[in-house]
Amino acid sequence: MRLFFEPESVVVIGAPRKTGPGALNNIEMMLRYGYKGRVYPINPNADAICGIKAFPSVSEVPETPDLAVISVGRDRVLPMLRQCVDKGIRRAVVITQGFSDADSIGAELQRQIVELAHATGMRIVGPNTMGVINHYKHFTTAFVDRPFPEKFPPVSLIAQTGFIQVAPREIAYGEWGKAIDTGNTSDVDFVDALNYFNDDPETRIICIHMEGMNRGREFLKAAAATTLKKPVLAIKTGRSRAGARAALSHSGSLVGEDDVFNAAFRRAGIIRVKTLLELRDSIHALLRLEEMKGPRMCVLTVTGAGGIMCADAAEDYGLELSSLPKGLPEKLKQGMPDWIHVGNPIDIWPIGMIGGNYTRVFGETLKDLLVADEVDGVMCIFPVSVSALHQDLNLLQAVEEARQQTGSRKPISAWTYMDSDLFRDKFESIERVGNFDSIDQAVQGLGFALRATRNRERRAPEPKVFPYDAEKVRSLMGTDGVLAGEKALELLACFGIPAPESRLVSSAVEAVAAGKEIGYPLVLKLAGPAFLHKSEWGGVVPGIRNRRDLEKALRDVEKSVRRKDSRARIDSWLVQEQAEGKEILMGLKLDPQFGHVIACGLGGIYTEVFRDVSREIVPIGRGEAEWMLKSLRMYPLLQGARGERPVDIEVLIDILQRLSFMATVLPGIREMDINPVMASAEKCVAVDARIIFE
Amino acid sequence: MRLFFEPESVVVIGAPRKTGPGALNNIEMMLRYGYKGRVYPINPNADAICGIKAFPSVSEVPETPDLAVISVGRDRVLPMLRQCVDKGIRRAVVITQGFSDADSIGAELQRQIVELAHATGMRIVGPNTMGVINHYKHFTTAFVDRPFPEKFPPVSLIAQTGFIQVAPREIAYGEWGKAIDTGNTSDVDFVDALNYFNDDPETRIICIHMEGMNRGREFLKAAAATTLKKPVLAIKTGRSRAGARAALSHSGSLVGEDDVFNAAFRRAGIIRVKTLLELRDSIHALLRLEEMKGPRMCVLTVTGAGGIMCADAAEDYGLELSSLPKGLPEKLKQGMPDWIHVGNPIDIWPIGMIGGNYTRVFGETLKDLLVADEVDGVMCIFPVSVSALHQDLNLLQAVEEARQQTGSRKPISAWTYMDSDLFRDKFESIERVGNFDSIDQAVQGLGFALRATRNRERRAPEPKVFPYDAEKVRSLMGTDGVLAGEKALELLACFGIPAPESRLVSSAVEAVAAGKEIGYPLVLKLAGPAFLHKSEWGGVVPGIRNRRDLEKALRDVEKSVRRKDSRARIDSWLVQEQAEGKEILMGLKLDPQFGHVIACGLGGIYTEVFRDVSREIVPIGRGEAEWMLKSLRMYPLLQGARGERPVDIEVLIDILQRLSFMATVLPGIREMDINPVMASAEKCVAVDARIIFE
Repeated sequence: MRLFFEPESVVVIGAPRKTGPGALNNIEMMLRYGYKGRVYPINPNADAICGIKAFPSVSEVPETPDLAVISVGRDRVLPMLRQCVDKGIRRAVVITQGFSDADSIGAELQRQIVELAHATGMRIVGPNTMGVINHYKHFTTAFVDRPFPEKFPPVSLIAQTGFIQVAPREIAYGEWGKAIDTGNTSDVDFVDALNYFNDDPETRIICIHMEGMNRGREFLKAAAATTLKKPVLAIKTGRSRAGARAALSHSGSLVGEDDVFNAAFRRAGIIRVKTLLELRDSIHALLRLEEMKGPRMCVLTVTGAGGIMCADAAEDYGLELSSLPKGLPEKLKQGMPDWIHVGNPIDIWPIGMIGGNYTRVFGETLKDLLVADEVDGVMCIFPVSVSALHQDLNLLQAVEEARQQTGSRKPISAWTYMDSDLFRDKFESIERVGNFDSIDQAVQGLGFALRATRNRERRAPEPKVFPYDAEKVRSLMGTDGVLAGEKALELLACFGIPAPESRLVSSAVEAVAAGKEIGYPLVLKLAGPAFLHKSEWGGVVPGIRNRRDLEKALRDVEKSVRRKDSRARIDSWLVQEQAEGKEILMGLKLDPQFGHVIACGLGGIYTEVFRDVSREIVPIGRGEAEWMLKSLRMYPLLQGARGERPVDIEVLIDILQRLSFMATVLPGIREMDINPVMASAEKCVAVDARIIFE
Repeated sequence: MRLFFEPESVVVIGAPRKTGPGALNNIEMMLRYGYKGRVYPINPNADAICGIKAFPSVSEVPETPDLAVISVGRDRVLPMLRQCVDKGIRRAVVITQGFSDADSIGAELQRQIVELAHATGMRIVGPNTMGVINHYKHFTTAFVDRPFPEKFPPVSLIAQTGFIQVAPREIAYGEWGKAIDTGNTSDVDFVDALNYFNDDPETRIICIHMEGMNRGREFLKAAAATTLKKPVLAIKTGRSRAGARAALSHSGSLVGEDDVFNAAFRRAGIIRVKTLLELRDSIHALLRLEEMKGPRMCVLTVTGAGGIMCADAAEDYGLELSSLPKGLPEKLKQGMPDWIHVGNPIDIWPIGMIGGNYTRVFGETLKDLLVADEVDGVMCIFPVSVSALHQDLNLLQAVEEARQQTGSRKPISAWTYMDSDLFRDKFESIERVGNFDSIDQAVQGLGFALRATRNRERRAPEPKVFPYDAEKVRSLMGTDGVLAGEKALELLACFGIPAPESRLVSSAVEAVAAGKEIGYPLVLKLAGPAFLHKSEWGGVVPGIRNRRDLEKALRDVEKSVRRKDSRARIDSWLVQEQAEGKEILMGLKLDPQFGHVIACGLGGIYTEVFRDVSREIVPIGRGEAEWMLKSLRMYPLLQGARGERPVDIEVLIDILQRLSFMATVLPGIREMDINPVMASAEKCVAVDARIIFE
């Protein structure tokens, strides 16, 4: 990747002769950017471009350049790449569009390009790309003119589009340090770019714009390693379309595509942002605040009303209002009237007004907060004014002094008003202070710092290995690719996942005997391959409480079957313990990008409407299984709200781990739904299941 | 109110002698603002303040000023107000803090002030306020120095804090035209201010910052009238605390305080914003875009990736992607390669690149969209650059020409990049174009315009009147303030709300006879005043399917009661039809601000965890009742998802209207829960209820 970002020589194929307005000449842009490497324009119709000697073909260039930049018509890209390979060039940026972004002809051309790359070891960025920017080397392949920035923070971008690259003023925190547009991402992809930026000392924060992805597992691996060192932010677009695609079938609703990305990003420690605005705020937060060691925020504000807004925002962004440092309330109330009360948010307004020394009391309090064990980060609201009448009010200076005098590294997030625009540079000069455009964005900033810190400190899952009867598993899996009902439950049982007690019987007499053995209440089910969709045959009768009920149920089902098909014959019945408790759905799904995803959530009739489902990438350990349950909105019901006994959550955690293990042992599982697991205080059993193999 | 905003003369009581840095002298600020009215400082220790002759007391002022501005210590406020009353002054702004914002002494002082106001007709803003700003008259009562703004849009602010008033650069769209800080809102309140701004030709948009409120019903009336003329935006803070307060009892979860504000604002046509950032964006949207007649947005973009982001955001903000104008795709594809495809979002990038005339094709397409019947508003993404190399790219000018040449009033929302900061003024000069900081904010802007338009066009509810037996209602209500179980159901029945068929019986023999009459399945319930909490006595047995079950249930309950209390005697039983279907919760709650609130939502064990509840302010008509059901997440289940028959939604709509009517007839209802209404295709019945009267 280094040659893409730091080439010492570049051959530019297809640069127009024309320069100036409207020419979109990328050699011109490269030179304006101050690129110091050697540039070789290829153009058979020009002697020179931008004053640089042009060559009729690549073969005539007097050295082997590090990089080729290609923007000829799509039909000529492959021949040009071949010429580059022949010349010994090993890196190319293909700017040309009209490949897999366009039609089947373009897709075929792209396939051939990739084939060439794989055969020859040539690495290709694009096609359909703006290419690469590296401000550290004054290098750009873009055909768009931007002034070379005065300063650029160590933020690197990986995008599948060009516009984010040229819009850092509006999207990033001023600038990107380095950027790559992978375009159609035919060869060089997120994994390559991530690995490069992971090792790159000039990159402190990585931003990803993603529309789609391949090599999901490798991506997760690369990202998981990277996020232990530096934060990775991602905006994954297509949220809404994914929502529309989500089928209303169980599996569909369990694992919508977009939710899988959430699970994957969480696993890899990537912070997903929803909008470009959030991207900008998160970059600012991570550059300026760096870290926040816990969720406890103290608010120091010159307006009580603003303090309330901070409290609202705290809840939105996963923060808590900290308790106050010991002794601080007493200190603040000293010499004040009785009615002054001090809480968090600390409203310093009346204290400053009465005491007549705002700057001092604000600064002293901030110092106390910065060194207090009770506080992980501080949120400040105060006015900044250039008015001569407010020169005594030097709150920003108080912030600076508090930072310097305490030596604390705790984050300070701030929102200021009145003349905030005029104080931006001053803010910049104070370490670990974030200066945001609104109260909510400032609180959110602390939230981002906390998330990045937690991602750096997170630990990999520790999946358990379980014993299982491999022989029996093989015999059960059969050949038709689908296991449903009892067969599916048997397979689950091989992995230690309990099913309700049941007996397969072939007569009413046997059924009654089985009922006596198992104990009521019972469910009676039609069995046998002829009745795959039992309910459609009226073949499931729950809530059987005694022998009479059972006998009636047997008659009813027979009648129902005969009504549907007078020739149908019932060979066997299943008499099953009626499991009681909360209905929980569990499942696995093979995602094309990320492999097996495990899901768990609310079962029963409300599954689709509330979509209360948590997901993790397989494999999971105990911690992830526990999180999957705890993050459900229905979790309080599992804990026994309304005075009920709590369900056996340990067993649910165990079942989830066993499912994860099962997926690693049986990689051919395409889809599995256990619907439901019935969970009570006494037991948790899989009542029905369906498994589809590849 | 006019005298507060446009006083021709002001007496300032308690202005300090000191001026300049740190003095916070509001006379100084008033003069710096260019106020042209007559100003009378009251200060017994000064001859003049800011060069204006001072008077030792109000009585010596040579005229009766329109307004008094008071900032003396809290103990001296009341005497000063009395002097003002004696002088004939009828308006006062009390800046002093330390009243109901502080302690019980302050609260008592404030009560006395209000008493004086009510007794004398004096109107008071505050206490604890920054007061009033009116840029049209160069008038301010604030003790904070701000430069008089060059321009100020017709946006007026009503706030319960001062900081929003002095932070318009950071919060508003540049400035407020007029602003009032009602402070502790002891006398002049939201209703007064709203009514003033409603009639005020200098106000086009009203923004409200609200922490609490009184006169809720009057507020709703004033706001409902105002929003038919001009948009009202509100930020109501304390969202999170309200969340925390929400009890886990049914009524608590039904009607959390914050949700009542949502219902009230919706009823009044007020647009609630969550954050100050949203406030700024909504002001910008309503000033610039004015109206959007429907949800159909067409996206015209120079970046496909940005187009996808617009599609994501459309879903977030209640917009749809429009179909394309007839003939437009064909027009755009003319002379283009086959692989160009045109959809919404319209990605103009490849067409512009290939055709070589971006500006023309962009402008022509925009014109088509502006005049197309299929499109209600346009979202544009394009670069703006000052680079000499991109002078051929004049997309902003194309926007201007499209606006001028079509004469269309459709909103255009835009996000631009590269040099966006340098084009703000140019944007301002084009009518009905919004220029936002990010893609999502721009799409959100169209959403705000749509909401304001719909609020202007909305219609008042048309509540129905139902017949009822007033005599019977009176006899049922009794004296103890609580009606539960059968009594409550009887009361509901008086208003035509159906209950399950049931019989009160006093023996097993009678019970069996009743069972035969009603038909199985049945529920058996303990009856009689001794067993108010039936379930605690084990006194409710559902799912009785035959006589034997019934007899067993009678025995079981007797045993259970005797176990709890050997002396307890069972006098009577209730044999009740077992209603089946979906469990729906309905209820009423008397809100201290807004009166009766009606709620409906998911019943059963999931009520608390999913909080799927809709609320409306009473009275409601058919439209509101229908909305209450349709806005529930569980609504698809009522419609009959999973192949079930739909429940009788018309009956549910009818019941909600009857409950609303009941609340208007019985204003003493403090709380009512019907839990649940069982709703099926055949019938919807109230199965259990509890009513608490004031």
